Amino acid sequence: MMRRIACGLFWGCLMTSLAHAQNPIRARDLGVPLDGVPGKWNAVTDVAGVAVGHTTLISGQGKLKVGSGPVRTGVTALLPRGLKAPEPVFAAWFSQNGNGEMTGTAWIDESGFLEGPILITNTSSVGTVRDAATKWWTARGIQKQPWILPVVAETYDGYLNDTDGFHVKDKHVADALESAKSGRVAEGNVGGGTGMTTFEFSGGIGTASRKTRDGFTIGVLVQSNFGRRYQLQVAGVPVGREITEDTFRKQELGSIIVVVATDAPLLPHQLKRLARRVTMGLARTGSVSGNSSGDLFVAFSTAPIEGGDKAGVSKIAMLANERIDPLFEATVQATEEAILNAMVAGRTTIGRDDHKAIGLPHDRLREVLKKYNRLAANP
Amino acid sequence: MMRRIACGLFWGCLMTSLAHAQNPIRARDLGVPLDGVPGKWNAVTDVAGVAVGHTTLISGQGKLKVGSGPVRTGVTALLPRGLKAPEPVFAAWFSQNGNGEMTGTAWIDESGFLEGPILITNTSSVGTVRDAATKWWTARGIQKQPWILPVVAETYDGYLNDTDGFHVKDKHVADALESAKSGRVAEGNVGGGTGMTTFEFSGGIGTASRKTRDGFTIGVLVQSNFGRRYQLQVAGVPVGREITEDTFRKQELGSIIVVVATDAPLLPHQLKRLARRVTMGLARTGSVSGNSSGDLFVAFSTAPIEGGDKAGVSKIAMLANERIDPLFEATVQATEEAILNAMVAGRTTIGRDDHKAIGLPHDRLREVLKKYNRLAANP
Amino acid sequence: MMRRIACGLFWGCLMTSLAHAQNPIRARDLGVPLDGVPGKWNAVTDVAGVAVGHTTLISGQGKLKVGSGPVRTGVTALLPRGLKAPEPVFAAWFSQNGNGEMTGTAWIDESGFLEGPILITNTSSVGTVRDAATKWWTARGIQKQPWILPVVAETYDGYLNDTDGFHVKDKHVADALESAKSGRVAEGNVGGGTGMTTFEFSGGIGTASRKTRDGFTIGVLVQSNFGRRYQLQVAGVPVGREITEDTFRKQELGSIIVVVATDAPLLPHQLKRLARRVTMGLARTGSVSGNSSGDLFVAFSTAPIEGGDKAGVSKIAMLANERIDPLFEATVQATEEAILNAMVAGRTTIGRDDHKAIGLPHDRLREVLKKYNRLAANP
Amino acid sequence: MMRRIACGLFWGCLMTSLAHAQNPIRARDLGVPLDGVPGKWNAVTDVAGVAVGHTTLISGQGKLKVGSGPVRTGVTALLPRGLKAPEPVFAAWFSQNGNGEMTGTAWIDESGFLEGPILITNTSSVGTVRDAATKWWTARGIQKQPWILPVVAETYDGYLNDTDGFHVKDKHVADALESAKSGRVAEGNVGGGTGMTTFEFSGGIGTASRKTRDGFTIGVLVQSNFGRRYQLQVAGVPVGREITEDTFRKQELGSIIVVVATDAPLLPHQLKRLARRVTMGLARTGSVSGNSSGDLFVAFSTAPIEGGDKAGVSKIAMLANERIDPLFEATVQATEEAILNAMVAGRTTIGRDDHKAIGLPHDRLREVLKKYNRLAANP
Repeated sequence: MMRRIACGLFWGCLMTSLAHAQNPIRARDLGVPLDGVPGKWNAVTDVAGVAVGHTTLISGQGKLKVGSGPVRTGVTALLPRGLKAPEPVFAAWFSQNGNGEMTGTAWIDESGFLEGPILITNTSSVGTVRDAATKWWTARGIQKQPWILPVVAETYDGYLNDTDGFHVKDKHVADALESAKSGRVAEGNVGGGTGMTTFEFSGGIGTASRKTRDGFTIGVLVQSNFGRRYQLQVAGVPVGREITEDTFRKQELGSIIVVVATDAPLLPHQLKRLARRVTMGLARTGSVSGNSSGDLFVAFSTAPIEGGDKAGVSKIAMLANERIDPLFEATVQATEEAILNAMVAGRTTIGRDDHKAIGLPHDRLREVLKKYNRLAANP
Repeated sequence: MMRRIACGLFWGCLMTSLAHAQNPIRARDLGVPLDGVPGKWNAVTDVAGVAVGHTTLISGQGKLKVGSGPVRTGVTALLPRGLKAPEPVFAAWFSQNGNGEMTGTAWIDESGFLEGPILITNTSSVGTVRDAATKWWTARGIQKQPWILPVVAETYDGYLNDTDGFHVKDKHVADALESAKSGRVAEGNVGGGTGMTTFEFSGGIGTASRKTRDGFTIGVLVQSNFGRRYQLQVAGVPVGREITEDTFRKQELGSIIVVVATDAPLLPHQLKRLARRVTMGLARTGSVSGNSSGDLFVAFSTAPIEGGDKAGVSKIAMLANERIDPLFEATVQATEEAILNAMVAGRTTIGRDDHKAIGLPHDRLREVLKKYNRLAANP
Repeated sequence: MMRRIACGLFWGCLMTSLAHAQNPIRARDLGVPLDGVPGKWNAVTDVAGVAVGHTTLISGQGKLKVGSGPVRTGVTALLPRGLKAPEPVFAAWFSQNGNGEMTGTAWIDESGFLEGPILITNTSSVGTVRDAATKWWTARGIQKQPWILPVVAETYDGYLNDTDGFHVKDKHVADALESAKSGRVAEGNVGGGTGMTTFEFSGGIGTASRKTRDGFTIGVLVQSNFGRRYQLQVAGVPVGREITEDTFRKQELGSIIVVVATDAPLLPHQLKRLARRVTMGLARTGSVSGNSSGDLFVAFSTAPIEGGDKAGVSKIAMLANERIDPLFEATVQATEEAILNAMVAGRTTIGRDDHKAIGLPHDRLREVLKKYNRLAANP
Repeated sequence: MMRRIACGLFWGCLMTSLAHAQNPIRARDLGVPLDGVPGKWNAVTDVAGVAVGHTTLISGQGKLKVGSGPVRTGVTALLPRGLKAPEPVFAAWFSQNGNGEMTGTAWIDESGFLEGPILITNTSSVGTVRDAATKWWTARGIQKQPWILPVVAETYDGYLNDTDGFHVKDKHVADALESAKSGRVAEGNVGGGTGMTTFEFSGGIGTASRKTRDGFTIGVLVQSNFGRRYQLQVAGVPVGREITEDTFRKQELGSIIVVVATDAPLLPHQLKRLARRVTMGLARTGSVSGNSSGDLFVAFSTAPIEGGDKAGVSKIAMLANERIDPLFEATVQATEEAILNAMVAGRTTIGRDDHKAIGLPHDRLREVLKKYNRLAANP
């Protein structure tokens, strides 16, 4: 079992969990006025082929004993073309603030390709996850070169998790990869986002998507772990100044990893343009990308790349720059919504040393939106 | 005379002009709820030493005749240490979207220094302004190297101005430089921003500043010329969906040049961090940094750099990265406010072929803010 | 007349000039052992479509009188697809040392395209040439956007030329553009390279090319103006320590602009890889890319880009990264040879204040190569 | 025991090993004509404070059995200020070709600091080494932030080593770190360079240094693992075309990690300039930085950084850009020599599946230098 939920800790855990499984509430269900047209799942998986899997590790409670817990962590795997199609995708990355790790980026920059999955975990576990990815990848015999340069990113969960305990193991990485699938993506305290917090609310993993008028899809997945409460804006409304209880930060201590997927045929330098728009979605939530943040973004396109001819020449497709604005808008919108979704899905979590991060109270959010005349009708 | 205002064109021009000179209305005067503490002038000139000068060229009306007008353009000069102190400042730049020109950036990147003034004009006039800057600079005998690499940036004013007419001349550049001073900075349709529009309202030049708790100052100057109306957000309020009249764009066609000044002792790589935060202030106004945008930002520090010793070693000061967050926040806030100020100061302008850009109607803005319960008291 | 040669200044000028026109001597004619297979012209014009034109300005002699001369300067124009095909090419640029100017690079980075010609001149004339390019381009009505972002680069010819005299005029730029053609490319003291020096020998413009086994062509054009004599290596031989007379520099004061053209179907991010290899060809001549150098490189591919479909999607070709090494090798080799060709073609030049730069003495070069057992047979 | 040398494999191993320990032969001992003045050790450790430690793992022979061997690998640790002074140093990095991994680079770029050691190992072991570095670093309680972003780089030793066997363990990393010291640095088949080859000769680790006239020191350490034989140039002499036996590559399959240390007071953006010069030293050996290469360079300065005052402001020193050329020259020279030293120190190695890489034959090298009249007198 990937998830070992310490439910003795707080009543209602099981029921909430079941409710979530049935009918998870998301930002737009609460009347947040969000622009644009989402895809079927309003998730990164709306980009055909993209598969996501989580391994969630929750165990123990009370005082921190390094190596023993409490454990509130995990790993999230995203496969650009799913488990069965290991072909590379065009990709690019951008660092808005580099206080974090994303391995494999030198090769993305150089080659223009993302050759394997993207894995997201906690800061200390990057090495383990990189090793595990190497083993998993090698075992499948799908690498293009004799070596592998896995992409592994992280945010820091030391407020809730025994992060120096190295609780993520090889098996957890393989499980996340092999459980990856299309369709609905679990959000909040799952996978790499299990012990993460956003604007001092619980919750790390969020996702959203947009369809453009040209028929393209943008999907975004975030592992969000940043923000002081007072900064929080929801669709422009200063929510962080209205819901002020249960804060725990004296200074910004966080990061956000963002993955942008699209089926639009964009070249690597165009995907870098997309990656730079993530900053703008992030800004809309109130972030100023603080010094302690590892705000690292990767964007890829699942458009097909034909096998090359004898001379090594492939035929590929490219969208004109003049047609790219709807994709920029979609990226900004989906990033903003994915972050909100991470918070809306986050459940109150008590971790190491009884540190506590509350879930964003849904009713309070609706009240604040109403106060500022922004509550969307018929959510 | 720098300004030759074609006031026959619209009644009230003179009176408005006088009123502006006495008591210009700015965004926070209208009750826009803006965070942070501005400096004395709420302008880039709040950073001690920074001087700004404008040459505004307004003449002619009616049908475009290339070379004859109508003319709605100019040039803005910003001197980091004023006219009398030509010493270089540490600097860095960032391109959020590179559909524009800023000369001299390779040397900023390489040397870490901005060695002369920053000049901002219309797209076609970059060459003329570069030449003029070279002549002005050489004549003063202040260059450090045998050659000069001036920093000249631009946005495109072809909607209102005879931009292919090359109306900016050497003299106009020298005038802008030599009229540069500290204190209040004229905003709206002045200098390089004369023929610019922002979210389909008139107005290009705007400025704002912030004081941090640590006693540092951030000053921002923008030449703003971007945005579709529907995108406009003012302090998070969807103003662009409420004031919908007199739009004229079918697609985004614009740019924004942003200058960030500070007296905080930041090294070039830290100033690049500041420059990247401009994107976040821009995002707060609703921009997605469209394909057609030259969104180019330059940041500099006026902190003193002692002359080197015999070995060429200078003593300098550096602010710890751990103390930089207030400067990030100030940059985001001042960028947002400078853009709003450019619109608030913009006056209805009729240019080539009777193209028209209305000034942002101040009363309407207040109504919308009130509708969304965001009108600040006692503006 | 583009060229006004002040031949009274040095005997033999006319004859040398005629001899050059008939049968110019180049580096490999002198027995320099160079690897790889050049194209027909051993020039950038071996890449089909590429056209080059020079305007050379030589007049006056003796003491510098700013604005009057002596004049030893000019402008070189390179059109990626020739005069008749203004379609953009994929492009990228790289700055090995940014003490120089290349305008238009923000848009190359952003769009992935070079949309017009590349112009190379002296430092002070960048503005004039940018203006002239804008006018020429606009007059032809071939721009893709309402504005134009010309690519103009420079090196500094103040040792020989009245560089503050702004002798390059609009007409000279138009002449260089309109005289551009395929075939043999004049080298040495021509075009933008007229007043330039390389390792303290006369000569600025050089070119070379390579054919790869896969049938692709790499062409390089340099405007070279760098180097201390003692640093010079020719095919690894320490020539600069053997030919030590007539040096004039106390410190490095120079730059090199390099254009790499190819018909291989490379995407922008792959062209950036090519641009970075220019550094390696430069290094082989002994350069360490000194502080005063504007070592700016631009690479483009003439591979066709089909017009997009209704959705704005084009079909393009891409060479596999696994097949790119021969192009890297060709770039390094052709860069080295183009620099050597600039020196071999350079003729002794006496400029402002009787400053003198000697031409590389061909016989002495052969002697040195022989001394080190590197003289190629049957040159 | 860190080193378990399988000496049954080839006679003379022990004696060679002892000889090396006494009086290791280096490139300039063989008469290679190298410019510049090395420091006492002609090693990166000539920069005061820099300490280097190796863990070398050699065991087994014959057919590859993944997980069992043969093992020809290890890890090299470099501490910028030694074991006792964990204070950060200013740093920057550069990727000439990004087919490789160097973790921690986003934070170097962002912060301008290298906060801990640099570790170099084989490709597969990056994760393990990152984990081990995190544990070692955390245990010492010296991190500045709650998290650690270790710098771990790699080259690929799969030709000689059971690289998928993950033979580098936590203990080996700690041993390399704790054995780090100043003074002579072992070269060739040691540490991370144990299973590496250079121009198809055995040997990975090399080092060299230069003193400048201004009294500054540049030290370079390489883990070299690149090059086809025919490309090899030694001081400009085409050695690779003269010593042609025992090659084993059909295509380039390698990388080089280069660390540049200096005591000159350079800021991060100036260190990036140094890092870019590594390319030029690499080029002098004949490399074209092939597609398969992870050519990743990091540069740092050990100049002191005073603790900040209450406002977080430190006093630091900066060398003028105008004085940086000798450091550029030193970096190019020391990089070239460090690579040559790696080959000169490399001993014939037989690894997995009896793959063999010969040591560079010293006498043959001297013969070739003599043939081309480049053998230095009195080596």
